[in-house]
Amino acid sequence: MNTIVMKFGGTSVADTDKIKNIVKIVSKEVKKNKIIVVLSAMAGETDKLQKYLDDFKSQNSIESDLVLTSGEQVSIGLLSIALKKEGINSLPLLGWQVPIITDDNHEKAKILKIDNKRINKFFENNDVIVLAGFQGINVNGNITSLGRGGSDTTAVAIASAVEAERCDIYTDVEGVYTTDPNIEKNAKKISKMSYEEMLEMSSTGAKVLHTRSVELAMKNNLILQVLSSLTKKSGTFIVDENELIEKEIVSGVSYSKNEAKVTISGILDKPGISAKIFSLMSENNINVDMIVQNISQDGILANITFTINQKDYNLTKSVLENNNNELDYKSLSLDKNVAKISVIGMGMMSQSGVAEKMFKTLAKNAINILAISTSEIKISVLIDKKYTNIAVKSLHEVYNL
Amino acid sequence: MNTIVMKFGGTSVADTDKIKNIVKIVSKEVKKNKIIVVLSAMAGETDKLQKYLDDFKSQNSIESDLVLTSGEQVSIGLLSIALKKEGINSLPLLGWQVPIITDDNHEKAKILKIDNKRINKFFENNDVIVLAGFQGINVNGNITSLGRGGSDTTAVAIASAVEAERCDIYTDVEGVYTTDPNIEKNAKKISKMSYEEMLEMSSTGAKVLHTRSVELAMKNNLILQVLSSLTKKSGTFIVDENELIEKEIVSGVSYSKNEAKVTISGILDKPGISAKIFSLMSENNINVDMIVQNISQDGILANITFTINQKDYNLTKSVLENNNNELDYKSLSLDKNVAKISVIGMGMMSQSGVAEKMFKTLAKNAINILAISTSEIKISVLIDKKYTNIAVKSLHEVYNL
Repeated sequence: MNTIVMKFGGTSVADTDKIKNIVKIVSKEVKKNKIIVVLSAMAGETDKLQKYLDDFKSQNSIESDLVLTSGEQVSIGLLSIALKKEGINSLPLLGWQVPIITDDNHEKAKILKIDNKRINKFFENNDVIVLAGFQGINVNGNITSLGRGGSDTTAVAIASAVEAERCDIYTDVEGVYTTDPNIEKNAKKISKMSYEEMLEMSSTGAKVLHTRSVELAMKNNLILQVLSSLTKKSGTFIVDENELIEKEIVSGVSYSKNEAKVTISGILDKPGISAKIFSLMSENNINVDMIVQNISQDGILANITFTINQKDYNLTKSVLENNNNELDYKSLSLDKNVAKISVIGMGMMSQSGVAEKMFKTLAKNAINILAISTSEIKISVLIDKKYTNIAVKSLHEVYNL
Repeated sequence: MNTIVMKFGGTSVADTDKIKNIVKIVSKEVKKNKIIVVLSAMAGETDKLQKYLDDFKSQNSIESDLVLTSGEQVSIGLLSIALKKEGINSLPLLGWQVPIITDDNHEKAKILKIDNKRINKFFENNDVIVLAGFQGINVNGNITSLGRGGSDTTAVAIASAVEAERCDIYTDVEGVYTTDPNIEKNAKKISKMSYEEMLEMSSTGAKVLHTRSVELAMKNNLILQVLSSLTKKSGTFIVDENELIEKEIVSGVSYSKNEAKVTISGILDKPGISAKIFSLMSENNINVDMIVQNISQDGILANITFTINQKDYNLTKSVLENNNNELDYKSLSLDKNVAKISVIGMGMMSQSGVAEKMFKTLAKNAINILAISTSEIKISVLIDKKYTNIAVKSLHEVYNL
């Protein structure tokens, strides 16, 4: 008998009816397979808990994780009750009961070890294991959490540990789309894509999967499926690139409005100056994405532009202002009115002209490019936020998606 | 250094301000003592979780306990954060982390073992332990709960395990009163009373303490104090009867409106008939309190009246109806319009006339007595519910409370 892991997010466990819908989905698979269901907390619950922590300005990670991981305890209990009502032998398990051993990094812990012998033991008397996502335990016996969206990672990690046939990630959309259907109504569901493409999609703004979970699936060559808990259609399979018969040159267009642009003007153009800026950023755990450095015409003063996540806006501002003694720049500006638009496709590696087509399309729509970054299978540009929709729609069209 | 256990209920952790108030109380004691704080879930939280279980008609005790015990995880995390903010070294612990080992009786588990060496180990690096009340773990590794009000029992059990100097139970009242101040404004706070008196008070309706916690304190000769978290006054001390210099003849009047009266009429008066009825009740886990059996005048048919908890009303009705074949009674009536009024006092043991005074007082107020039950230190009568207030007030007066 094979094992299948099914992960359901907060909206899929939000109320009695939705939990009963999961029972239906599990019922269909349980005759043929051993099932591990991984759940998030009921929708809104983790936000409520986070609000308590914010009220107390919590800087205590042991306590924060204790509070944050309480929500899954409720959802797994309720689903297990509902499964048993339908005669399905089910066992609810918290992270520490498995145990899911993690490192010490509270609020963003990494899974170190899951003992598949223990899981097999649990399956001796049960057909379904209902596992709390998002949580683990460290070697000191403290509860840890994997960070927001961490239930995807729990699902992929447990699927890898038991060598599951595949890991199904149930969401409220039918799969991964060529772009956001809310912007472009012609967006199509992608039936199959590579881990690398999914990684680029996630990291450039598509909110379907937790990036870490895709990395982990890629490492373990685990088949992922993103599908809807409300329809019976198959979703998007995420697989090794060798499984893709024909590689799309561009398989999707993604966008992110969570970026902020930072421009440091009039800084002395001497060796080591950008190293100094970016060390400051990294010391403060600020992730820097695109970087543009304009070498000055006179060779003395330069401008440096880079992007950060909007959540780091205030921190970045104060770090740069507090270090102007050392950096000695003329002016600093931060701008949230930007968006990052990305085109992604495995075929790009072997095909030229993709970038050219992108720049031409944007130019035709009079959209100015503020910064560019590329990888082997992705081109991202930074533009004015107000052009997001037109950029996404025109790129979606020009690449025949 | 002595250890003091402090227990705070749901209303004392209901919001940020109330949690900060606990920090103040702990701060005062932490210089002189090692402190274990035992917490309930935030007010309303356990009710909300119980409602989820009711929606699913849960009959699965492992799951029910998993769901019900999630609330304390939040309250202990938040208090520990607040304590650390004030520079107090605090450690939050869940039941399984201590561990508090219980038996297998989910939803009403009994504590079997708490290892005080482990607690002492935790105190090596911490001045305060913030412990989740109400919960434990059984030998199979499943989370158990001690039943509603179980946090009192957790507090007494841990206090006994570490041989604490005393266990302070913080509530929203200033202590145990001679009767309910909502009914009789002249009710006075009792400064010291015996375990036995407190037990009778709890089991006859006073909602101050979980009965099991008082039994456990008595068994371990642990000093309990019931006091308010909002005033600085000392509360009611509950101690061994030998510590009481003068034993009050009647120390309190309590009442309960949770009773229902069951009358089985026209049943054949033959040996073993009441045994049959009460076996049926006990097989169905229905607690029977007062019993009145009227031997019939003709010696053939009898009436049997007894009281049950209102929560067992429907169950009792159906059990008796379904067994009329065997019991063969003429009629069955159940009545929720009753109240149990009790007078309690250690001095009763050595003093006569207490019952007479009670019956006279009720008669003077034209209150009919439907049933009577007594113990060495308690007399309870069942009356029509509408006379509750007048009965309580007049008894409170006649015994000079």
